[in-house]
Amino acid sequence: MIRIALAQINPIVGDLKGNSLRIKDEIAKAAALCADLVVFPELALCGYPPEDLLYKEHFIKDNLHAVNELAKEAKIIAAIFGFVDMDKKGNLYNAAAIIHNGKVVGVYHKRQLPNYGVFDEKRYFISGNNEGLFSLNGVSIGVSICEDIWIDRGVVEEQVRNGAKVIINISSSPYDVGKLSQREKLLKEKAKKLKAPVCYANLVGGQDELVFDGGSVVYGSKADVLAYGKQFEEDLIQADLNISPSHRKKKMKIELKTSAAPKKTIKEIKAVRYTSIERIYKALVLGTRDYIQKNGFEKVLIGLSGGIDSAVVAAVAAEAVGANNVIGVTMPSQYTSDGTKSDAFGVAGNLGIEILEIPIRDIFESYTEGLKDTFQGTKPGLAEENIQARIRGNILMAISNKYGWLVLTTGNKSEFAVGYCTLYGDMSGGFAVIKDVPKTKVYELARFINRQREIVPSSTIERAPSAELRENQKDQDSLPPYDLLDKLLAGYIEEHKSITRNVKGKNKDIAKEVVRLVDRSEYKRRQSPPGVKISPRAFGKDWRLPITNKYSDL
Amino acid sequence: MIRIALAQINPIVGDLKGNSLRIKDEIAKAAALCADLVVFPELALCGYPPEDLLYKEHFIKDNLHAVNELAKEAKIIAAIFGFVDMDKKGNLYNAAAIIHNGKVVGVYHKRQLPNYGVFDEKRYFISGNNEGLFSLNGVSIGVSICEDIWIDRGVVEEQVRNGAKVIINISSSPYDVGKLSQREKLLKEKAKKLKAPVCYANLVGGQDELVFDGGSVVYGSKADVLAYGKQFEEDLIQADLNISPSHRKKKMKIELKTSAAPKKTIKEIKAVRYTSIERIYKALVLGTRDYIQKNGFEKVLIGLSGGIDSAVVAAVAAEAVGANNVIGVTMPSQYTSDGTKSDAFGVAGNLGIEILEIPIRDIFESYTEGLKDTFQGTKPGLAEENIQARIRGNILMAISNKYGWLVLTTGNKSEFAVGYCTLYGDMSGGFAVIKDVPKTKVYELARFINRQREIVPSSTIERAPSAELRENQKDQDSLPPYDLLDKLLAGYIEEHKSITRNVKGKNKDIAKEVVRLVDRSEYKRRQSPPGVKISPRAFGKDWRLPITNKYSDL
Repeated sequence: MIRIALAQINPIVGDLKGNSLRIKDEIAKAAALCADLVVFPELALCGYPPEDLLYKEHFIKDNLHAVNELAKEAKIIAAIFGFVDMDKKGNLYNAAAIIHNGKVVGVYHKRQLPNYGVFDEKRYFISGNNEGLFSLNGVSIGVSICEDIWIDRGVVEEQVRNGAKVIINISSSPYDVGKLSQREKLLKEKAKKLKAPVCYANLVGGQDELVFDGGSVVYGSKADVLAYGKQFEEDLIQADLNISPSHRKKKMKIELKTSAAPKKTIKEIKAVRYTSIERIYKALVLGTRDYIQKNGFEKVLIGLSGGIDSAVVAAVAAEAVGANNVIGVTMPSQYTSDGTKSDAFGVAGNLGIEILEIPIRDIFESYTEGLKDTFQGTKPGLAEENIQARIRGNILMAISNKYGWLVLTTGNKSEFAVGYCTLYGDMSGGFAVIKDVPKTKVYELARFINRQREIVPSSTIERAPSAELRENQKDQDSLPPYDLLDKLLAGYIEEHKSITRNVKGKNKDIAKEVVRLVDRSEYKRRQSPPGVKISPRAFGKDWRLPITNKYSDL
Repeated sequence: MIRIALAQINPIVGDLKGNSLRIKDEIAKAAALCADLVVFPELALCGYPPEDLLYKEHFIKDNLHAVNELAKEAKIIAAIFGFVDMDKKGNLYNAAAIIHNGKVVGVYHKRQLPNYGVFDEKRYFISGNNEGLFSLNGVSIGVSICEDIWIDRGVVEEQVRNGAKVIINISSSPYDVGKLSQREKLLKEKAKKLKAPVCYANLVGGQDELVFDGGSVVYGSKADVLAYGKQFEEDLIQADLNISPSHRKKKMKIELKTSAAPKKTIKEIKAVRYTSIERIYKALVLGTRDYIQKNGFEKVLIGLSGGIDSAVVAAVAAEAVGANNVIGVTMPSQYTSDGTKSDAFGVAGNLGIEILEIPIRDIFESYTEGLKDTFQGTKPGLAEENIQARIRGNILMAISNKYGWLVLTTGNKSEFAVGYCTLYGDMSGGFAVIKDVPKTKVYELARFINRQREIVPSSTIERAPSAELRENQKDQDSLPPYDLLDKLLAGYIEEHKSITRNVKGKNKDIAKEVVRLVDRSEYKRRQSPPGVKISPRAFGKDWRLPITNKYSDL
């Protein structure tokens, strides 16, 4: 019997020292649990994705130095963790180190390098070609990295053909709404087909726009769950694998013997399973918390309009860093209704966060006065509306600069998509919490947030959405109904479909207008803050459209 | 003898219809010049780089349809142009079409796909494996695409081994300060080594941050220049190659015969060669003009501070779209000196552009009044400085929204690097003309711009740089001297060097401070507008650093 522990840690990109300490701590914990082997996620040492840090030679060297330092920590037990390897020619590999007895005893180089969606691995790495096999107390084990296991007839199958009785895969697999079920289906099928336990260690934590959701898992050789790690939290899980040592003619290159103390069999560990909307909420909370804290902020600032978007963002922020670290600002103008203003105070009261009130009417008047000559003879319109949004942006940023609080941006995906937002206005801020959440999903989130008691005022949920930048303005004056809009946007953005050709009937003209709006808003999105990716295609690393673009699908 | 024409056109990304028309026109012109073959750049049909447009199936199909339509245009002569090919499995190729007699007679698929720097070709394409050979009036010719020719012992060498007597390479090679000489050295050496003429057709034009500089060239088999295309302009060049038809045992797969009329030998064509600073200037002008015009703007708006950056940007803009399409705005505050204010008018007068004056003092006071309670007990500092910069941003954007003029951002690379700029303030705008130009180079540009008569006032050039956001503020109060700063930045940014380890003596502490500033400004750069890339590594597609990043090289 061998006992394998999976340590799903939350590293910080680039923090070689801090991440080494985390790995060291978990090795000690796993040793105390009498594990023979503890497994860490892909690139756990440097965090994922390190991006162009990989172009810095000194970063690579510091990372290699840290590997050797860490090897000293694996004395009784063995450990596997992800790092960046470099060969003599200077080629880089996305690699797994096997450490034992104070030494690096083996290294595996990832073969399948994803270079689509949010991934740019071929920018940095070359594919490996070693076999990734070692034996632990006589049991043959194959180790692979993330994408390697997603391929049919790939390295994992090869390892099993060459005698592997256990499959280990170390991953940094970013969350999106469909990912968990895809992943579990795949891993289960692999265990079943290969008749070998699959140990899958996934990263956890937020890194800029990405959230890694953990959910590490051990499937037995009958695809039964032996251990299940928490989602959206650090966790250390373990499973006992009753596999007899293989008797091989040839000795393996890497043969490890651990001398963990005798151990009682552990029971299946099962973490709580979340619902789909709960997972989105947890992803937003984790992504927001990690962006705030990993970047050294304590408090955050949110413009509270009284609308649903800012209410949901405030609730997520309060959950992420505590209500006492969230400050709301309401900035009423002459167009702000009593209802929205009182709802801004309402959500602040419900959450128990501080709220500041800074009216913008006089400031707005100073602009109209200053621009009187320049705007002479024109009618008030978009320019005047945007001035107000930008005054609010300026006030938020001024408070941010004064007190060192991070501004959270409150725009949703539907707005970012069609450009129904003001650059340098409501788009201002360091992190856009619900940037990838369509408006219809924002409503779902609000109802979820209100599951126990009212946080988002019901009047906020019921009121027709409005930017309140002119008299009686409603979102629906300028945009199609949100349920139709979000459906069209899903096809156009997440699947890159031609909605103008696929949509029939009276919605065809609406589809054309949506395409036109999305295409011409690229310049705004390019200057938008990062936000948590929850969909298969977010406006971030997996959306690389040219600004200058005359392709017409109308 | 065969006559080959190279048509360096300026397509617009995605504009399949417009680009087809451009190609059609040049085919007709080349036919009128009695060329046997006219060659267009890489992906000339859809523009380069099409980025995630390539993820849209309908875009690929529209592009394939356009290829077949274009084939009809090559009747008398043959033509080669770049397009996106797709195989039956849906794999995409960066491809060259050979058209003749109204048909697509051959297709070559690029083999070497660059996936570094600004390039993401492995995100979209797979490597080809066909040979790229055809014969034209009995002369064997090898066609390859861009990166293919940069490889030693690659497809071009293979083509020559297989009988090619002429090398054609179609490229979309973006400009940077060192690129022309690299390219010419490479092509010359290939011609010499392979004893075959090299015909190199390069794209021209601006596309978001990239500028393609043209400079197409034909080297004879002794590496002598037979024809030389203009840099930074569309051009159609041609050369006569005196090569006897090869006598091959086997027929080639693609054998073309053109029936161009009898022709007089043409003389060597030599375009003007520019100096290094002239090339930078031309690149900025072309990149700016194309961003403005390809995105459908007529007029641009520039905040004129009286400093050197905005003066240089105004001069570039006036050259790009004409002085009557450039509007300057001076927005003096209580900290604006008489000297800078009069210099703002000075440069506007020298250029003959309109200038508006909108003082910001009263608007600023309305903010301090509005924030009185919130800022109570604090000393004026960065927050108050940034409010002023953001008022100016708001005014520029308001005028932009009102009249549909594009705001040009005036920050230089040194500022963007160390974050000496205000997000949503002076960083506001659609296009950042000198974003990749270090401050020391801005001075060089100013002197170049003044080569015939004073445009940038000499007082502007001589005055110590200042943001003028507080009393007696000077850049050098906060930053190292620009000549030292720019040297350190070049090492850190363009070469990803460890300047904290490489720099010795009293500059070591300065180097550490520079690293700290660059690293912590990533969040600002992420929200900055695109600007013309002129260096080997600009803050754009070839700079992908995480915001959340605890790597410490101090």
